[in-house]
Amino acid sequence: MDIKGYVLKKATEAKEGARAIAKVSSGQKNNILIKMAETLETKSRELIEANKKDIAVAQKKGLSKALIDRLTINEKRIQEMAQGLLEVAALPDPVGEITKMRQRPNGMLVGRMRVPIGVIGIIYESRPNVTADATGLCLKAGNAVILRGGSEAINSNKAIVNILRTIVREHGIHEGAVTFIDIPEREAIMEMPKLEGIVDLIIPRGGEGLIRAVTENSRIPVLKHYKGVCHVFVDRDADLKMAEYICFNAKVQRPGTCNAMETMLVDKAIAKDFLPKMIKRFKDAGVTLKGCAEGKKIDASMEDVKEKDFYNEYLDLILNVKVVKNMDDAMNHIAKYGSAHSDAIVTMNHEKAMRFLREVDSSAVFVNASTRLNDGYQFGLGAEIGISTDKIHARGPMGLEELTCLKFIVLGNGQLRDSG
Amino acid sequence: MDIKGYVLKKATEAKEGARAIAKVSSGQKNNILIKMAETLETKSRELIEANKKDIAVAQKKGLSKALIDRLTINEKRIQEMAQGLLEVAALPDPVGEITKMRQRPNGMLVGRMRVPIGVIGIIYESRPNVTADATGLCLKAGNAVILRGGSEAINSNKAIVNILRTIVREHGIHEGAVTFIDIPEREAIMEMPKLEGIVDLIIPRGGEGLIRAVTENSRIPVLKHYKGVCHVFVDRDADLKMAEYICFNAKVQRPGTCNAMETMLVDKAIAKDFLPKMIKRFKDAGVTLKGCAEGKKIDASMEDVKEKDFYNEYLDLILNVKVVKNMDDAMNHIAKYGSAHSDAIVTMNHEKAMRFLREVDSSAVFVNASTRLNDGYQFGLGAEIGISTDKIHARGPMGLEELTCLKFIVLGNGQLRDSG
Repeated sequence: MDIKGYVLKKATEAKEGARAIAKVSSGQKNNILIKMAETLETKSRELIEANKKDIAVAQKKGLSKALIDRLTINEKRIQEMAQGLLEVAALPDPVGEITKMRQRPNGMLVGRMRVPIGVIGIIYESRPNVTADATGLCLKAGNAVILRGGSEAINSNKAIVNILRTIVREHGIHEGAVTFIDIPEREAIMEMPKLEGIVDLIIPRGGEGLIRAVTENSRIPVLKHYKGVCHVFVDRDADLKMAEYICFNAKVQRPGTCNAMETMLVDKAIAKDFLPKMIKRFKDAGVTLKGCAEGKKIDASMEDVKEKDFYNEYLDLILNVKVVKNMDDAMNHIAKYGSAHSDAIVTMNHEKAMRFLREVDSSAVFVNASTRLNDGYQFGLGAEIGISTDKIHARGPMGLEELTCLKFIVLGNGQLRDSG
Repeated sequence: MDIKGYVLKKATEAKEGARAIAKVSSGQKNNILIKMAETLETKSRELIEANKKDIAVAQKKGLSKALIDRLTINEKRIQEMAQGLLEVAALPDPVGEITKMRQRPNGMLVGRMRVPIGVIGIIYESRPNVTADATGLCLKAGNAVILRGGSEAINSNKAIVNILRTIVREHGIHEGAVTFIDIPEREAIMEMPKLEGIVDLIIPRGGEGLIRAVTENSRIPVLKHYKGVCHVFVDRDADLKMAEYICFNAKVQRPGTCNAMETMLVDKAIAKDFLPKMIKRFKDAGVTLKGCAEGKKIDASMEDVKEKDFYNEYLDLILNVKVVKNMDDAMNHIAKYGSAHSDAIVTMNHEKAMRFLREVDSSAVFVNASTRLNDGYQFGLGAEIGISTDKIHARGPMGLEELTCLKFIVLGNGQLRDSG
């Protein structure tokens, strides 16, 4: 099969779809999203049947229980997908917003207009709900989407996309606006990032290896995070009770997520007061602790932490514990071992809080709150298409606004260039 | 020579410089820029001597007059460099700005803080002034800069960088903040875009071939424009007198620039009224005209335009002339042949002006003004480091703000994640 040609054809359709969806009014885009939500629910039986095929294959392949759980669609999950689309429909449309419109000395008005990006490729793991979620966000922001979900979910995704495309078409819009790469070959993933001039942005989600492969192959901008090695620093001026529940929440509430804490940094000055109770609480919750030499002087029952552990994203009930000399020591640790994802300080000292906020170079920096709160819903974006730890365009959770960009607009009455 | 190792070492120094400059106060950054401006002027003789070596080599190589002119430094150009640095010093510092700080239902405040990007690599042609201009902009926005200028200017650039680095060091800042790749090998350019995790952004300037090579080799975000194929569309509802002087300015005022018009699109309804006078004016100014069949019915003296000409960036006194059926026809032409750089409509019709503004997907879209105005100074950014036709992070002229990004900040008082 000519995979290259196939992907190019699909992407070219998406580009036509992008020109179409970019012009659609907010009201019409909302109608489409609402209709999609309704139809997913009314056709839930069809979706569940398609999903059963994927589940059967997955079981035959012996995939893990966790993977099969992520892959599964049921009535409740279809309702959640529909609900997600309705929530995006209810959000304000970022497209068309004009900002910073100012008059220049020659009388012309110069401002910026928020416009869609164009064609956005989403590469994701075998979670069928992403198919609907990503489509809703991309369309609402006026973009066409090219979906490339995990091959284990291919039947489920096909069934979902079939519904979404039908609705796009029924509203008179080129159905390339929702484009699905429906061949399971992995090479199809690697063709997309080569289509400069057709695809405008790629957002890969999933394992670090896949994301690195996409980024290294890409001539197109990629927004992503590789991993979340997140820290909480408990300062000597912290409310130690607050520090205890923030650290506990950051590690234990849902350890398998990218914004969960992987290393706890404790100021030497309060380590003796803070660590014993904290360690007990973690142990009661089944957390395996790996301590530095200084920490083990306080509690020798911790395992030894090795330097390479500090780079680790455990995604599990395992935690590195390190005693640091002071906040500078903590910030140096974060700069060296962190992944610029989510980092927090617990302190009552205003000056230190402000310095930590300014100097820690992460996508979200927290004072006295859990790193687990780094999330589009929690931050008020309404929904998110992923979290970026990149340094250009978007950092942190990416919502509708991050799926658009600003162009310059000029309103003149005959202005010319007369110098330079 | 180990070019790979050399570039890696330089970039690593720049990364150290970036951590240092990111923390420097606005006042201190301004002092550094002012001191740089002063010192460039007091050491002008040294700079001119170094420049003479480059000129001698260039003459021996038989470089064109235009290239040698761009390469030349004299007292006036040194004053302009100094003036540029003083102007950047006088601009407001974008770093630290906090926006959209809002309270969430759980009581935490979530906002965005503008922060430096980190290490920015600038790859540019043999214009020594860019060395000072780019350094001023990058430092003011709190970034370290890696400079890689055209090899013909190596002695001039070395002399300039030597002054700039000395001043950075004298202000107690790691001099990696201004890093210069001082080997002439072209391979050195191609190593920089591979240093993901060290270099954060690359801005290449110069010929399309070089920019394409950098982009294709890069694992790092690249902001650039390949070329400027710019259009002016003269609508049937235009003030034809205004249209005449806008089109003339867009083509003739400085034809060698990326924002000069390459194709003039003329509404069929007014072509007979508009073209004869316009063509006469262009011819009097020495412009070679290439007309479409419809246009040649009005003036047969034009050369024949070929389809491939519409993709051309002439950078010269040559212009394509095309008669179009209406605005939609014009917008379709721009979408197909344009380079998303600068496009203008001349019209008195409000509805068409607004549609053109919204639907033309270019970095700057003009109503009733010359495309030549697409420029950082003209738009009020104070200065620019280049123009981007990319669709993420920055479109149009890039000033100080475009050399920064926004991270999320959270001020809490013990907030935890309790769901999801």
